[in-house]
Amino acid sequence: MPSLNPHLLHTEETYLFAKIAEKRKRCLLDVINLGVGDVSKPPIASCIDALRNSVEEMTERSTLPGYPPNQGYRFLREKIALHEYANRFSPEEIFIGAGAKNGAADLLDLFAKGSRIGIPNPSYPVYLGASRIAGMQVLFLPCLEENNFAPTLPNEPCSLIYLCSPNNPTGHSLSKKMLESWVAYAHNHGSLLFYDAAYEGFITSGNPRSIYAIPGAEKVAIEARSFSKKGGFTNLRCSYMVIPKECRLQGVALGQLWERRCQFKFGGVPYPVQRAAESLYSSRGKKELMLQIQEYQAQAVYLRKGLLERGFSIVGGSDAPYVWCKIPPNLSSWEFFDLLLEKTGVLCIPGVGFGSHGEGFVRFSAFPEIPLLEKALTNIEREMFCAI
Amino acid sequence: MPSLNPHLLHTEETYLFAKIAEKRKRCLLDVINLGVGDVSKPPIASCIDALRNSVEEMTERSTLPGYPPNQGYRFLREKIALHEYANRFSPEEIFIGAGAKNGAADLLDLFAKGSRIGIPNPSYPVYLGASRIAGMQVLFLPCLEENNFAPTLPNEPCSLIYLCSPNNPTGHSLSKKMLESWVAYAHNHGSLLFYDAAYEGFITSGNPRSIYAIPGAEKVAIEARSFSKKGGFTNLRCSYMVIPKECRLQGVALGQLWERRCQFKFGGVPYPVQRAAESLYSSRGKKELMLQIQEYQAQAVYLRKGLLERGFSIVGGSDAPYVWCKIPPNLSSWEFFDLLLEKTGVLCIPGVGFGSHGEGFVRFSAFPEIPLLEKALTNIEREMFCAI
Repeated sequence: MPSLNPHLLHTEETYLFAKIAEKRKRCLLDVINLGVGDVSKPPIASCIDALRNSVEEMTERSTLPGYPPNQGYRFLREKIALHEYANRFSPEEIFIGAGAKNGAADLLDLFAKGSRIGIPNPSYPVYLGASRIAGMQVLFLPCLEENNFAPTLPNEPCSLIYLCSPNNPTGHSLSKKMLESWVAYAHNHGSLLFYDAAYEGFITSGNPRSIYAIPGAEKVAIEARSFSKKGGFTNLRCSYMVIPKECRLQGVALGQLWERRCQFKFGGVPYPVQRAAESLYSSRGKKELMLQIQEYQAQAVYLRKGLLERGFSIVGGSDAPYVWCKIPPNLSSWEFFDLLLEKTGVLCIPGVGFGSHGEGFVRFSAFPEIPLLEKALTNIEREMFCAI
Repeated sequence: MPSLNPHLLHTEETYLFAKIAEKRKRCLLDVINLGVGDVSKPPIASCIDALRNSVEEMTERSTLPGYPPNQGYRFLREKIALHEYANRFSPEEIFIGAGAKNGAADLLDLFAKGSRIGIPNPSYPVYLGASRIAGMQVLFLPCLEENNFAPTLPNEPCSLIYLCSPNNPTGHSLSKKMLESWVAYAHNHGSLLFYDAAYEGFITSGNPRSIYAIPGAEKVAIEARSFSKKGGFTNLRCSYMVIPKECRLQGVALGQLWERRCQFKFGGVPYPVQRAAESLYSSRGKKELMLQIQEYQAQAVYLRKGLLERGFSIVGGSDAPYVWCKIPPNLSSWEFFDLLLEKTGVLCIPGVGFGSHGEGFVRFSAFPEIPLLEKALTNIEREMFCAI
């Protein structure tokens, strides 16, 4: 008898961002997209040059790259080890991937079906969706406003805990003290932490950018980072994970286990994409990148200020290019989303899409540039006050 | 308690191609790599132009591509539907992926753990490795020389059957009659066929290039193809699967189920890569591609002839850029592999690496160009006759 995966069959039907794309299609106004956090600025010039050069290398037999190495090219892993971690980790402990999304989902292959997985609520929908598909037991970690949206430590042991800092959607990053408590939890319960730091480049609060700021974290934590937002790679797809040599579960080195998984299930990331990622670490690339991130941060400040001035209650943190907003208590976040889209053409993300504790909030992306943000604010001011 | 995936823990430790790469590193001679089938010719000129153009599009805000659509860009899916399937399938039934490897492995997400999976023996190691990791029950389908290496139909029902035609490693493609019996089997047992046609571009025998040549296949078969070998995309990573609308299991449309899986677990394929793939279908691209495939085919003919003249017994088919060779009965295929490498520097793949029924054979890749093939043949002639 053929047997379909019952967990996939019964996963919530629609991926949040797909549902929003559908609603967007049906909108009759010009849509101002403050929904999905997609970059609005081209990759920096260093990146473009690296792409151009590597395409030319593909034209010559002598420099033609074949199958990419599964773990990623050493030239990129060396740069990451040096520039991101001051060589505290070796290139052997860095694993290049095709996006933090894939990494977060695929890591579940390391765990037995039915393992207990801790997932912040609200958080990036991939953690929950992929855990459901894999038939895992999900334990939600409520992120409450009164606790600055930091996930609550569970009493039960978990096999794996997803931590996202700065958190998507709330924009809050975890303090050193909080991270210490998570590392202690993982040591006490023999858990693995998957530390999703896709937005670390946007931290302004002084909170740690890496879980490895905490002593002992290298034994219990995998850190994932992405070039998507920081480097404008949402299209090119490149990310990396640090799996320290000391990171072991049940006596098994997780780096080796991940490598074994990827040998059978992953084909690597194209050479031009990895050369483009490498270029972010050149001295020119670093300068260009800093300027670009500053522009995005300035946009987030502009949007936050504009929404505050228009009476919105901004409750999230400012360590991500997102603004997390409280909505009027008489509307659900989907109702607010629909009303906002219908009246103003502004697309946001309803908080409940990130988990039940996101109800009562919406997320605005600050990736679109100032003229568009300004237009969004103008439309909101004109249309929304009487509506809510 | 954390629980690691016992199936991953107990999967055979080393991926065949990784083990071979290790042996290659230890070889003291100049290695002539007739092992892993990696392309030796740059992507065709149309492809390079498409890459160049799309990199320039990435420099402009107005043409900057953001997150790639999960299913792939419509421009590419339309071209595939038209040029590969004469619009028998719609673009909605085509799913772009990052390589046939990933597709073959990830498809298992659709099946419940413990489902019975039919796997040809010998065949591409990913089917077995990924099935083991997913905790599936594996049923081997022996491919025997006396049966022209066609996989044997099982008596038991299977949830999923991997068919690879032209077969990697044997180079044999399945005849229309054989494909009919597989489609009938799938109908009778409610099975799904995963038809891996990564090498269809190399078929010269007149056997079908597509499983959909068989009436009724659209209800029971997914077809996977790749640009890796045909278009020189081993590095760029691009493939596609056809999941016909009528293809259902247990009443569930598999295209929708696959889409749901990918929404949570896949980030799409970069725009420049999909534009490069699209260029293969332009009239210029088609001409360039035909020439390139003819060159590879001529190399395979050259290698086959050269090995025959040197007393080797070529037993495989000629529908793939590989040569499947019988080895002397006094040596195992790993022993032959080691001896060949040590004496001549020629790297092949031991047949047993593709499954127990591959024992007694080795696979040579005909991707390297004629001067290298000639050198390999010369070395073999000089060193091997006294050795075996």
